[in-house]
Amino acid sequence: MIEEKIIELGFTVPDAPKPLAAYIPALAVNNLVMTAGQLPIVKGELKYKGKLGQDLTEEEGQKAAEVCLLNCLSVIKSVVGSLDNVERILKLTVFVNSADDFTAQPKVANGASELCVKIFGEEGKHVRSAVGVNQLPLGAPVEIEMIAKLK
Amino acid sequence: MIEEKIIELGFTVPDAPKPLAAYIPALAVNNLVMTAGQLPIVKGELKYKGKLGQDLTEEEGQKAAEVCLLNCLSVIKSVVGSLDNVERILKLTVFVNSADDFTAQPKVANGASELCVKIFGEEGKHVRSAVGVNQLPLGAPVEIEMIAKLK
Amino acid sequence: MIEEKIIELGFTVPDAPKPLAAYIPALAVNNLVMTAGQLPIVKGELKYKGKLGQDLTEEEGQKAAEVCLLNCLSVIKSVVGSLDNVERILKLTVFVNSADDFTAQPKVANGASELCVKIFGEEGKHVRSAVGVNQLPLGAPVEIEMIAKLK
Repeated sequence: MIEEKIIELGFTVPDAPKPLAAYIPALAVNNLVMTAGQLPIVKGELKYKGKLGQDLTEEEGQKAAEVCLLNCLSVIKSVVGSLDNVERILKLTVFVNSADDFTAQPKVANGASELCVKIFGEEGKHVRSAVGVNQLPLGAPVEIEMIAKLK
Repeated sequence: MIEEKIIELGFTVPDAPKPLAAYIPALAVNNLVMTAGQLPIVKGELKYKGKLGQDLTEEEGQKAAEVCLLNCLSVIKSVVGSLDNVERILKLTVFVNSADDFTAQPKVANGASELCVKIFGEEGKHVRSAVGVNQLPLGAPVEIEMIAKLK
Repeated sequence: MIEEKIIELGFTVPDAPKPLAAYIPALAVNNLVMTAGQLPIVKGELKYKGKLGQDLTEEEGQKAAEVCLLNCLSVIKSVVGSLDNVERILKLTVFVNSADDFTAQPKVANGASELCVKIFGEEGKHVRSAVGVNQLPLGAPVEIEMIAKLK
């Protein structure tokens, strides 16, 4: 039971955040499900804001990445009913709002990747791109999109 | 008839822009079709240029995003023959050329997302990531790639 | 024999680089295989570093893109056993670490795209997005992810 595992780890699956605009948060196609880019929003408010290497520590960036990951799971749940319908996590794309000289995007993205593996075990192991960008919606420090395979 | 709908909305499906380099503009695989990143090019010329939050208004950015969307549809048509072979639009990835303090990427991306829904209705609703970047090919303000499902 | 072709062209398929963090380098799903973002790492060391338009020439950027492409093939091989199991290359996403005024991302990405076509011929022709970003992991000039179709 994936949701119980998430709670054991000290987290919860939030209600699915509403898209900021004219799109849907997640969508199933064939045996895959893919999410829109998720920000570190908690209960409608951006919980972390600013650039890594300037406004936030790496640890804060990792916490932001954890929230993004939980929001990805949340919107997947909203489409497939239960996270127990997920066979495995396939891919994360992690955009990190970075000062021009910040190069530790992988460390920030690990916040999401490591939580993903804690939750799903072997089935949580995914491919990943971590990329620096000079700005993100609302000034968020991290934006993550996920592709997963359904049972 | 999707092309008639596009004309009703006051737009046209352009001829497919030529790739800027050694790649192809769109490609079908299994029951999906995916595009290369499309710029706001009209008849071989970049119609909009520069950074949001510095050189262009949000409204200009939205217009640029509309052109990118039409170019995505154009290159899909060039591969699958007719837009009526598209079952639904699955995903847009929207890269917005942004000044370092510009955070309204979702508003810019809405230019594409809203036109997509006007054209395809329910089948136009897609997942989306909108991301700021510090520069794009040719100095374009927006670059969009699309994944769609075929009938 | 794809590996022989690569050697004829004067390159080799390196050992698969180790991920920088908590993820896996490539993963097969259905009849596709997708890679994590690959940097221009050779034998564990970043071979090129810095921003295009500031620290590296376009030609150096193209060489870096070639290394990224070979690393993509390397990690695919590590998952599917032989590159002869690849039916065709579908997509490259090329992130180019760019000075704020550098707009020749397509030329840099051509380093990867052209090598891909030399190696795989018609089956190497792919869709592609080339995007500028203000920073990449370790300060790498290029990061590339690949999706390919398996036989």
